[in-house]
Amino acid sequence: MKNLENKLVRLVKRPKGFPNEDTWKLDSESINDLSVGEIIIENLYISIDPAMRGWMNEVRSYIKPIEIGEVMRAGSVGKVIHSKNKLYKKGAFVSGWGGVQKYCRTDGKGFVEINSEKNDLPIFLGTLGMTGLTAYFGILEVARVKKRETVLVSAAAGSVGSIAGQIAKIKGCKVIGIAGGKDKCNYVVNELGFDACIDYKNESVLRSIKRECPDGVDVYFDNVGGDILDSALIFINRNARIVICGAISQYNNSVVVGPKNYLSILVNRAKIMGMVVFDYADRYSSAIEEMKGWIKKGNLKSKEDIYVGLDNFYNVFQKLFNGNKLGKLIIKV
Amino acid sequence: MKNLENKLVRLVKRPKGFPNEDTWKLDSESINDLSVGEIIIENLYISIDPAMRGWMNEVRSYIKPIEIGEVMRAGSVGKVIHSKNKLYKKGAFVSGWGGVQKYCRTDGKGFVEINSEKNDLPIFLGTLGMTGLTAYFGILEVARVKKRETVLVSAAAGSVGSIAGQIAKIKGCKVIGIAGGKDKCNYVVNELGFDACIDYKNESVLRSIKRECPDGVDVYFDNVGGDILDSALIFINRNARIVICGAISQYNNSVVVGPKNYLSILVNRAKIMGMVVFDYADRYSSAIEEMKGWIKKGNLKSKEDIYVGLDNFYNVFQKLFNGNKLGKLIIKV
Repeated sequence: MKNLENKLVRLVKRPKGFPNEDTWKLDSESINDLSVGEIIIENLYISIDPAMRGWMNEVRSYIKPIEIGEVMRAGSVGKVIHSKNKLYKKGAFVSGWGGVQKYCRTDGKGFVEINSEKNDLPIFLGTLGMTGLTAYFGILEVARVKKRETVLVSAAAGSVGSIAGQIAKIKGCKVIGIAGGKDKCNYVVNELGFDACIDYKNESVLRSIKRECPDGVDVYFDNVGGDILDSALIFINRNARIVICGAISQYNNSVVVGPKNYLSILVNRAKIMGMVVFDYADRYSSAIEEMKGWIKKGNLKSKEDIYVGLDNFYNVFQKLFNGNKLGKLIIKV
Repeated sequence: MKNLENKLVRLVKRPKGFPNEDTWKLDSESINDLSVGEIIIENLYISIDPAMRGWMNEVRSYIKPIEIGEVMRAGSVGKVIHSKNKLYKKGAFVSGWGGVQKYCRTDGKGFVEINSEKNDLPIFLGTLGMTGLTAYFGILEVARVKKRETVLVSAAAGSVGSIAGQIAKIKGCKVIGIAGGKDKCNYVVNELGFDACIDYKNESVLRSIKRECPDGVDVYFDNVGGDILDSALIFINRNARIVICGAISQYNNSVVVGPKNYLSILVNRAKIMGMVVFDYADRYSSAIEEMKGWIKKGNLKSKEDIYVGLDNFYNVFQKLFNGNKLGKLIIKV
């Protein structure tokens, strides 16, 4: 194996508040001497997700923090270009935790093979990857939506919210989205088929939920936290389920603002529930098969928002939080 | 029937923040002319509960607000002294929503007969009444505690918390209380048999939970909200259940402070759940029978803190919030 020059994004400083350009460093290193059992993956697409912000904090969480000096953690799909591991053939496409880098040297643990055309790979970081699976299990296993229920979804144009809402529609629910800006709201209604979408940048979320959900909210699928969560809590029905999938409005705050209307769950005998998609790993493949079927029938649509080049990492990361994107954020290496 | 002079406490002003002496008025009125189907109950004991504060707000809740001019809503036990209703015999003891008044004229709806000695009546406003039933269903049906789990209970010396913790002990849990002051903590450990009790007035709740719950918290039964809820959220285990039974630290705030550590439920796949005891009404009698058995065996102890006279209402109400009481607050008429 000839020497490979890896290009990688390292975490060099724990951010307080919003990360800046000094948080990471674009670095290079040589890879050689592949040991028995190891493979080298050439990352083709890298997933950029809000969860990345949490992994950078030195706190007890569902996954250990990224260490200072380590390559920035990220999901990826790539191609096996060298293999000393019988489980992975050279040329195979695989997805897993490849990191924000050009090449990933690994023993292959946690990677799964993808049988797909090269052009179709990005969807395995989105709808058929972690974000889609989060939406799938969040709506079906945590919220357990029932036909004719009203389901409210924040960040409805986002990679998780867009899939969560569409799956609720497939299950016969009335689905209302919340997103920022006219373009996103149009996309959510006209492309994704939500019943309505509230533009939080241009209308009162409180009044709009009241208007769009005259029978109240049975399920609120929350990706944002903050004021929007508080507005939703006002309109929940008895036995409502609130799925806390994320809280993007709070990830860069040093002190999180808690839901001041949380006592609404007492009055309404409701539940606020957390979830982590990893808990459903043994059912990923059946979920992916089911979602593939929905995609084929045209019931499940998704968009990837793809940017080229590792140099672009910081710019693309910012898009997670400034709302300046449409669909699943991905870097093409 | 001769004319009866009723003495009653009326709500005359909706309080903002903490109620004051102008919130209520001690009034009198004549009762005569009993219609067919009606009874008159002489209230003997009146229950004073934190929930009263919520009933005074003009908001959508699990029960409609008390109207201005109405008698202050309260649970009570009393004796039927006149009856034109075949379901209620003169002389019978009954419990129900008798209100903060000497006599209650009613069609009897919602009242149940109590077969007990007059001296034993107060317990039907506490352990064998709403507060005990709230603890019973909260621990067994909402939290669904399992043997050897660690259960943390706030307001552990209070009427709900004291019973919740004892029921968790009966079910084989490790039970840690949180209460204010040495006397209450001693009572919780020495009289009620909790494994430990954290004195939030004299020690760091954060450090003490860490010390007393080395294996984390599986169930947190919350009566207080605020900082103590936030501290508990830091130590919850995976799949923890947090029962929101009340939030006495927040009831008099015009803006509630939400749990800023709520994202801990995401990381830990936990649930924050609301409950209202009324939902279990069809199972009250079997629950009361089971609790009577525990009382007989000495496994379930309770204290009533009884004050005499309707004139005392405002003083006793204040005790709900200033912590200056031990056990279930009751007014003897």
